[in-house]
Amino acid sequence: MKFGVCYYPEHWPEAKWAEDAARMKALGLSLVRIGEFAWSRIEPSPGQYDWGWLDTAIDTLASAGLSICLGTPTATPPKWLIDAEPGILGCDAQGRPRRFGSRRHYSFSSLAYRDHTHRICTAMAARYADHPAVTLWQTDNEYGCHDTVESNDPDARTAFRLWLRNKYDRIDALNEAWGTVFWSQEYRHFDEIDPPLATVTEPHPSHQLDWRRFCSDQVLSYNALQTEILRAHGARAITHNFMGHFTQFEHFQMGAQLDLTSWDSYPLGFLEQAWWDDETKRHYARCGHPDFAGFHHDLYRGVGQGRFGVMEQQPGPVNWGRYNPAPAPGMVALWSVEAFAHGADLLSYFRWRQAPFAQEQMHSGLTRPDDTESEACNELRLAQALLACAEGAGSAPSGARAALLFDYTALWMHEIQPQGQSFNPAELCLTYYTALRRHGLDVDIISRDGAFELYDLILVPSLPDLTLSEVTRLQASGAEILLGPRTGSKTSEMTIPPDLPPGPLKAVLPIRVTSVESLRPGVTPGPDIGVVERWREFIQADFAAYEPGLYGADIVWRRDLFTYVGGWLTPDALAGLVQDLATRAGLDTVSLPEGVRLRRRGQFVFAFNYGRDDAALQQVMERLGARWVSDTLQTKEIDRIRIFAV
Amino acid sequence: MKFGVCYYPEHWPEAKWAEDAARMKALGLSLVRIGEFAWSRIEPSPGQYDWGWLDTAIDTLASAGLSICLGTPTATPPKWLIDAEPGILGCDAQGRPRRFGSRRHYSFSSLAYRDHTHRICTAMAARYADHPAVTLWQTDNEYGCHDTVESNDPDARTAFRLWLRNKYDRIDALNEAWGTVFWSQEYRHFDEIDPPLATVTEPHPSHQLDWRRFCSDQVLSYNALQTEILRAHGARAITHNFMGHFTQFEHFQMGAQLDLTSWDSYPLGFLEQAWWDDETKRHYARCGHPDFAGFHHDLYRGVGQGRFGVMEQQPGPVNWGRYNPAPAPGMVALWSVEAFAHGADLLSYFRWRQAPFAQEQMHSGLTRPDDTESEACNELRLAQALLACAEGAGSAPSGARAALLFDYTALWMHEIQPQGQSFNPAELCLTYYTALRRHGLDVDIISRDGAFELYDLILVPSLPDLTLSEVTRLQASGAEILLGPRTGSKTSEMTIPPDLPPGPLKAVLPIRVTSVESLRPGVTPGPDIGVVERWREFIQADFAAYEPGLYGADIVWRRDLFTYVGGWLTPDALAGLVQDLATRAGLDTVSLPEGVRLRRRGQFVFAFNYGRDDAALQQVMERLGARWVSDTLQTKEIDRIRIFAV
Amino acid sequence: MKFGVCYYPEHWPEAKWAEDAARMKALGLSLVRIGEFAWSRIEPSPGQYDWGWLDTAIDTLASAGLSICLGTPTATPPKWLIDAEPGILGCDAQGRPRRFGSRRHYSFSSLAYRDHTHRICTAMAARYADHPAVTLWQTDNEYGCHDTVESNDPDARTAFRLWLRNKYDRIDALNEAWGTVFWSQEYRHFDEIDPPLATVTEPHPSHQLDWRRFCSDQVLSYNALQTEILRAHGARAITHNFMGHFTQFEHFQMGAQLDLTSWDSYPLGFLEQAWWDDETKRHYARCGHPDFAGFHHDLYRGVGQGRFGVMEQQPGPVNWGRYNPAPAPGMVALWSVEAFAHGADLLSYFRWRQAPFAQEQMHSGLTRPDDTESEACNELRLAQALLACAEGAGSAPSGARAALLFDYTALWMHEIQPQGQSFNPAELCLTYYTALRRHGLDVDIISRDGAFELYDLILVPSLPDLTLSEVTRLQASGAEILLGPRTGSKTSEMTIPPDLPPGPLKAVLPIRVTSVESLRPGVTPGPDIGVVERWREFIQADFAAYEPGLYGADIVWRRDLFTYVGGWLTPDALAGLVQDLATRAGLDTVSLPEGVRLRRRGQFVFAFNYGRDDAALQQVMERLGARWVSDTLQTKEIDRIRIFAV
Repeated sequence: MKFGVCYYPEHWPEAKWAEDAARMKALGLSLVRIGEFAWSRIEPSPGQYDWGWLDTAIDTLASAGLSICLGTPTATPPKWLIDAEPGILGCDAQGRPRRFGSRRHYSFSSLAYRDHTHRICTAMAARYADHPAVTLWQTDNEYGCHDTVESNDPDARTAFRLWLRNKYDRIDALNEAWGTVFWSQEYRHFDEIDPPLATVTEPHPSHQLDWRRFCSDQVLSYNALQTEILRAHGARAITHNFMGHFTQFEHFQMGAQLDLTSWDSYPLGFLEQAWWDDETKRHYARCGHPDFAGFHHDLYRGVGQGRFGVMEQQPGPVNWGRYNPAPAPGMVALWSVEAFAHGADLLSYFRWRQAPFAQEQMHSGLTRPDDTESEACNELRLAQALLACAEGAGSAPSGARAALLFDYTALWMHEIQPQGQSFNPAELCLTYYTALRRHGLDVDIISRDGAFELYDLILVPSLPDLTLSEVTRLQASGAEILLGPRTGSKTSEMTIPPDLPPGPLKAVLPIRVTSVESLRPGVTPGPDIGVVERWREFIQADFAAYEPGLYGADIVWRRDLFTYVGGWLTPDALAGLVQDLATRAGLDTVSLPEGVRLRRRGQFVFAFNYGRDDAALQQVMERLGARWVSDTLQTKEIDRIRIFAV
Repeated sequence: MKFGVCYYPEHWPEAKWAEDAARMKALGLSLVRIGEFAWSRIEPSPGQYDWGWLDTAIDTLASAGLSICLGTPTATPPKWLIDAEPGILGCDAQGRPRRFGSRRHYSFSSLAYRDHTHRICTAMAARYADHPAVTLWQTDNEYGCHDTVESNDPDARTAFRLWLRNKYDRIDALNEAWGTVFWSQEYRHFDEIDPPLATVTEPHPSHQLDWRRFCSDQVLSYNALQTEILRAHGARAITHNFMGHFTQFEHFQMGAQLDLTSWDSYPLGFLEQAWWDDETKRHYARCGHPDFAGFHHDLYRGVGQGRFGVMEQQPGPVNWGRYNPAPAPGMVALWSVEAFAHGADLLSYFRWRQAPFAQEQMHSGLTRPDDTESEACNELRLAQALLACAEGAGSAPSGARAALLFDYTALWMHEIQPQGQSFNPAELCLTYYTALRRHGLDVDIISRDGAFELYDLILVPSLPDLTLSEVTRLQASGAEILLGPRTGSKTSEMTIPPDLPPGPLKAVLPIRVTSVESLRPGVTPGPDIGVVERWREFIQADFAAYEPGLYGADIVWRRDLFTYVGGWLTPDALAGLVQDLATRAGLDTVSLPEGVRLRRRGQFVFAFNYGRDDAALQQVMERLGARWVSDTLQTKEIDRIRIFAV
Repeated sequence: MKFGVCYYPEHWPEAKWAEDAARMKALGLSLVRIGEFAWSRIEPSPGQYDWGWLDTAIDTLASAGLSICLGTPTATPPKWLIDAEPGILGCDAQGRPRRFGSRRHYSFSSLAYRDHTHRICTAMAARYADHPAVTLWQTDNEYGCHDTVESNDPDARTAFRLWLRNKYDRIDALNEAWGTVFWSQEYRHFDEIDPPLATVTEPHPSHQLDWRRFCSDQVLSYNALQTEILRAHGARAITHNFMGHFTQFEHFQMGAQLDLTSWDSYPLGFLEQAWWDDETKRHYARCGHPDFAGFHHDLYRGVGQGRFGVMEQQPGPVNWGRYNPAPAPGMVALWSVEAFAHGADLLSYFRWRQAPFAQEQMHSGLTRPDDTESEACNELRLAQALLACAEGAGSAPSGARAALLFDYTALWMHEIQPQGQSFNPAELCLTYYTALRRHGLDVDIISRDGAFELYDLILVPSLPDLTLSEVTRLQASGAEILLGPRTGSKTSEMTIPPDLPPGPLKAVLPIRVTSVESLRPGVTPGPDIGVVERWREFIQADFAAYEPGLYGADIVWRRDLFTYVGGWLTPDALAGLVQDLATRAGLDTVSLPEGVRLRRRGQFVFAFNYGRDDAALQQVMERLGARWVSDTLQTKEIDRIRIFAV
């Protein structure tokens, strides 16, 4: 795994660049990401490019033996461009422009911006694609950050109408597919249709779903515009840095446009942002949730078809959480090694030196504004030492026998109509992931187009618009299949299947969901169904439910290799069910202590301790009869990372 | 009592209509409401009417022996109309239009929309008023839903100025009445006056009050436009479906425009929406609050001058609550019978078949999208069987000897200046209602113009602008009168009476409220006044307070038949006071177990159990020495409904 | 100390004025504030002044022996002016005007409004500056109330660009100072710069800081426009009524434009508004927080360079809190005497008579709408009787030997980047103030330009942009200096000092803050650092931390007379540290019971009891061996005020 760092030469005097490069090299870093916010320096005035400083910066880094990941600077169009083309600005639901003065202030639909994107990307690619040190390109930066996937601007409205016309051809087909007869929402022409925003009450769900698909497609085509230019100029490899906890566009499709994926991993910031309760946030305040980074490593490995890395790794306190604590000693090393264990080929820290100015001045880096090393440098060294113990782990395929099916459209459908405010589909997915990981299982996260036949156990937390061909492919895989609530509950146009949920799943599991209910905290489905909360389905069938005494009457249903869960199970109930199915699937499980996770890469198993019990890893070793290869390396205070060979 | 159902033939293939009609008939339904959202089908393009489908639908239902309630489709003007007349759209406080894409997107003040309303209502009335099966018309649908009574659009602004000119004639009269000298808010012309919206801080309270009166009047005149057309064409009877928990326009005045009132009863959805704390919401999650439906039955019976029904009855889980649980077994039957007990002549379920598409696809119906019966059908049969035990109950007048005075202007005044965030006037009214109902008393809810002489006990939770003539009429009634806090505290123009509160009440109860205070939770008026929370008045008089040891010093004051409560009493304290006064008024009371309510209709008394104690109704029977006439009918799990003859 | 009252003759019939004046005089009042909202009566139509009523009102009051504080009426421009010049309206972040219909609806930057301000102030000053009874003028009213310091209107945008050009001269200097290279935020011309509002994510912090400075400067220049006119016409003295809990413009600079400062003290309303938790708000619901009024007295005494008063004193329940309880008996007297103890020369109640109309009709006054006295009149008499016991206290200088440095820019910096949602800089300042006051110490609140040499102990809760010359001046003072977290953490342009925090402080206290963290409730820095919450700094030095066992390892650092606290200490830990330093500084401390505070004026010490323990003052007396001079005066229920001579 290469170590890297994000660097902004434009922030520092040129005189410092060579020394910075030498220190990076000395720290064992080999890749430096630059350029992704530098438009105002590359083109200070309309059409007047200043390549000199960037040439020098790249050459200086290259001279020190470093490779370059060069970012296109499109996340931050400069002020002169916005003033010349105000239509570039993205707009809020009411159609009001969001203003210049931070970043990501463009609409993906802006035709003017696509022109200027073409121009700046072409100019950069023409100049640097052949540079021997530029081994990787990054398109833009964190597409969608700050809620920018949706924009109600004039270009977006026009493009949406065209997108609908392309999809439905005739307006009657749209009216029929959506069911616009309801509340007299029928349209006579595609040009009558606006984005489903700023309506008096909830807009039409099918309208919303197509809008979200359209917005996602705009991001995809915008990225494709960039990748095509870069490839045409001979770019060696292209990536984009995705985010954690972000699902507003289809990532698997963008993955297909890239050579490898990368993501930005901020375990403590993400913990603050996510849905966990205060107690959980206190407990893991300095470590992050034990499954959050792992989930995203597995997801982006899947999105990247096996090739992925971390482009931005949190090195210390960040600036953007509600609270920004310092990581516990050893955690930055743990996160770094964990990325490797999950298959990463790149781990790049954000950022080289903490900037003393502007929005992110309180974001830590590998070095401080006074050029001294921050704590993260020793963490980096610790990570390197640990990885040295696992030499030869190689870039073997994941080897996971369990898979979790993750689908962006599924999330959008449930977000559009949650039917109960505690039905959080992203949380549901993580809950299923945790149920696997608590048992020491390696997991691949796959799309609905994934190679089901590679797995012995497949979890589908929820796939509302499951199709019959997918049912057939799942069946053909021979794997144990666990399907969560609301699977099969919708058609692809966000209507209820005519024969009721679970729709096509009935072909293999003949049950009928006749009604559903959402439950406020503290309300249970009934006195005898204590393992279900939040969501419960009423199911009819001409056979009996699965182990009613254990999981609650009429909640879990099973036939052959298909098991369906008609409710939101409590974590322990779900873990029990998953262990049962894993055993049926022939997978070895181990019950891990709180906060401990395992991941195999090649012949090594990596054990990580996010918890507070210093003896937890030792217990796991004894349980497994394993012998550490990293015995002499310990982090301070809590025993956090161990490695053993299989 | 007729049973009915809401039906949308335009949602289903014509081939299904006859079968649907036959099944409705077989279920004992006799009235079908249709048409209220069908504008885009009735007039698919400007001026081109398509009556064919509606003719067929009506005839098909009529042929099955069903009567029709036909709705005017004005709640959902189609897209082509909005595009042709964008001024129809209602606007938010900032004057920004609310967009097409759901429903109720029109302003009541729009002159263009009044023209089109006239046109579509005339066309429908001309075609169907004479149809023998069309026995009832519904104007529009749920006026005001989704916060649409207020609209800051240009037509509204113009109309508001005219309304003010009509009321005050001279601008000086307005300045004097409001007290605009305060903060230099004086006007020189009516045309200078805007709606009291988007101001820097709180707008003038008198300005707000007149704006709310104006907005209410716009709803009333809009409805009158429709009823006048319908009557001119010979409509047999006209209703409108009011909502629960909605008080933004004057309902008694609209009742006078109608032949009967109806309302839409969603006990579980309303519980989620209302002010109760989490514990109460958990406790009644599957039943609804025991007084919420009853309160509204009594209110709309009053609004309808004795004639009312339920136009939409919740049949199972709905889609619009924060949480949407399934009703407990028996509750849909209970709600249905309860409507009858309170005097309803119609109980119509929403809706016949759950729609598999659009915004309400997760709202249950009597049947499911696959045509099977939902649980609600058996609940309907249970309700019918129960009512069969009470045959002969007839449509006798209410017979209640206790009344609760409910006034919309009173709510608006307290909402405009609550003076403490826990002073919720709607909650106050329900609290007084509960105090009566806990003691088994039947209640009429009456307006300030009501026939006070019919009652022995009248509760006035709060009537800030009480007039001297009302005091005289209350006194003439000979009833015990209980008046709640802030009664008499304002003039009709929302100023403090020159001689201090309780204003005209002093004529019969010579006290003076010298000061008031609002209290955060946990703060009490003083160590010895533990039965008061939220609100307390300081009162001076030359006689002693009423039973100071019992209700707290100086809080309750009494002279002759008038009792005044200068604070927000705790529920138990209020119940004790009400029982005391009921006894003085010669009414028999019975202390009911938690969740149990009684209601008499004709010679029958109906007992309802919203609680969790299966033995509660049995206890009440024993306490009353009653004998059930419905002994053989029991709902599952909990004993919820019993009927006995007097 | 003069007693006064706020009066609105325009609200009442002229016939009442003489009687009102006589009653004021009889109550011992000597100053009456009038006029500050009366523009629509002074100039009912454009250019047509009506002086008659105001002449009469002033003469009537003067004839009764009362002096006048005359307010310029600019807080409430009348409707005709807004209609003629709509550009006067202030705008929200999106640039949308805030509407007429309450008050403070003007932008400080509006050129049109500055013209009209000049006109009306000139007219008033010309007419009344020479009037013998008009001894004091008040400019406008509560600058900034209702969030009106910022306005994104066209005049403000133009003025901001000019302000920036004046400050930076060249655009490159601005780019360099702010660090706009970050995220390509560079500007080519000053005219490209907008207010930092409505951006996609957080705007640039240096941009925000200059915007806040600019907005503050606009308030200052607007006030100077008024004071210059008043002085040119010979006004005898000028004040402005500042608010509590308000820090959006620089008050010390405005103080320099005035002859004396005044502020509006609403202890119960402020308690509701502020940051305290529910338990604290319940505990002090009827008294206010024991340090809130005291803090502001000391602050505005500093702002007024020794001359200050209370222009509006809460007399009973107000109308604008979330909850509005009545003050406990004796509290209005306590607040009045406390103002005197802290050095006030004026205590004026708001208002003479409760208005029965408009927005503030629920705000109590000295008299009620029916002309009877409210409870406040007896409180006033009690205050006067108490002050009579302390005759001869005089207007001696404060005499405090401890000072607290308060800086507006410091608050803005921390508000712009709190780095943790519980880092409330205003709360931090009050916490440091409390730590002094719990020990019975008198405090002066001073600006960074203050006379440090007057004090033996100086607390600097946080001064991020501390300069080297300030360090030198602090050192030269010879006082013990306690500096709180984040002192020295920024340059004046809101960047991190190149040599890391605490920046220039290193000259006297050679430590280095290498990293910081913010902590959610319940998360502590480490198992051994239990006295720190919310905020913690990691500090390196080549010497040992101060008493690590007592205050937590590495949190408190000391060298010579400088002590630095690198964290948010718990209240008790901070109090302990302050007591320690006070002792080192040679100050006598006394540990006061909860809710008790002392203040010396001249030869008298005043003891105030905000708590619930009736014996608390008696305990303090015994502890101090003092003898009351006010022994015979007691408030009801709780022993709240005592005075003793030194």
